[in-house]
Amino acid sequence: QREQWVRNITHCQNDHLSTKLISGKLPQDFISSLTCMVCDHLLSDPVQSPCGHLFCRSCIIKFNHTLGPYCPACNFPCTSDNLIRPPKTFSSALSSVPLRCPYDGCGEQVRLDSFKSHCLSHEQQRDTCQNSEEVTNYLQINKGG
Amino acid sequence: QREQWVRNITHCQNDHLSTKLISGKLPQDFISSLTCMVCDHLLSDPVQSPCGHLFCRSCIIKFNHTLGPYCPACNFPCTSDNLIRPPKTFSSALSSVPLRCPYDGCGEQVRLDSFKSHCLSHEQQRDTCQNSEEVTNYLQINKGG
Ligand SMILES: [Zn+2]
Ligand SMILES: [Zn+2]
Ligand SMILES: [Zn+2]
Ligand SMILES: [Zn+2]
Ligand SMILES: [Zn+2]
Ligand SMILES: [Zn+2]
Ligand SMILES: [Zn+2]
Ligand SMILES: [Zn+2]
Repeated sequence: QREQWVRNITHCQNDHLSTKLISGKLPQDFISSLTCMVCDHLLSDPVQSPCGHLFCRSCIIKFNHTLGPYCPACNFPCTSDNLIRPPKTFSSALSSVPLRCPYDGCGEQVRLDSFKSHCLSHEQQRDTCQNSEEVTNYLQINKGG
Repeated sequence: QREQWVRNITHCQNDHLSTKLISGKLPQDFISSLTCMVCDHLLSDPVQSPCGHLFCRSCIIKFNHTLGPYCPACNFPCTSDNLIRPPKTFSSALSSVPLRCPYDGCGEQVRLDSFKSHCLSHEQQRDTCQNSEEVTNYLQINKGG
């Protein structure tokens, strides 16, 4: 229910990545700290609210637009004017999180900040490769940047 | 040199814990995000500067007092009035970081937020146990809270 409700607000299911792609055994609290509290995906362009919660920038903007100027996690007042960037070393840790490539026959471990270009290299061999529909959508939506 | 210089400002070598106590294989960028940019220990009561750097609260206060109102990492203006708490999920991840108990014959994996009480339980058996001088100092200094 919540999943569907959030999708109707954020429309990010093809745009963001699942935490299930994380490779290896990170402690659960570390995975939670990398997760958007609106959409439950891996944080994408994260921002920090005054109350200390983290969201994808697009998620909190869409949430505020739809449901008002409150934090989705704790209901503290929160508008896009109040958002700051999370700590730099935290953003570096997020960029470096190891993901498992979901393409058949690959399974390579790839950093989050290299994931798109890694997957695009598979797309270029698409005639000879199976690939995951979810990632194909992700690549189509994110191909600009 | 830097190590000695920092110790002369922070006096925290007996008060904070080394990142070398971290157990298992966390990615290096995760370990860096848990590290104070003044003293290089595991963050203790972390605070976040306006420029997005993280420090032990006591370290940034002592640093500012000695060297002026600037960020030790990037020289951006920074006083204790500008400090905020880091994201809640980040603090939870820090509290949960698995440490290896350094007492001889133990080697158990213990969460950071249970580490002191775990080590105190060894101290109570001290007549029959060897222990690490570093941790003994840590326990003496932190025994209040
Ligand atoms: Zn999302
Ligand atoms: Zn999100
Ligand atoms: Zn909140
Ligand atoms: Zn691959
Ligand atoms: Zn320290
Ligand atoms: Zn420190
Ligand atoms: Zn700074
Ligand atoms: Zn022990």
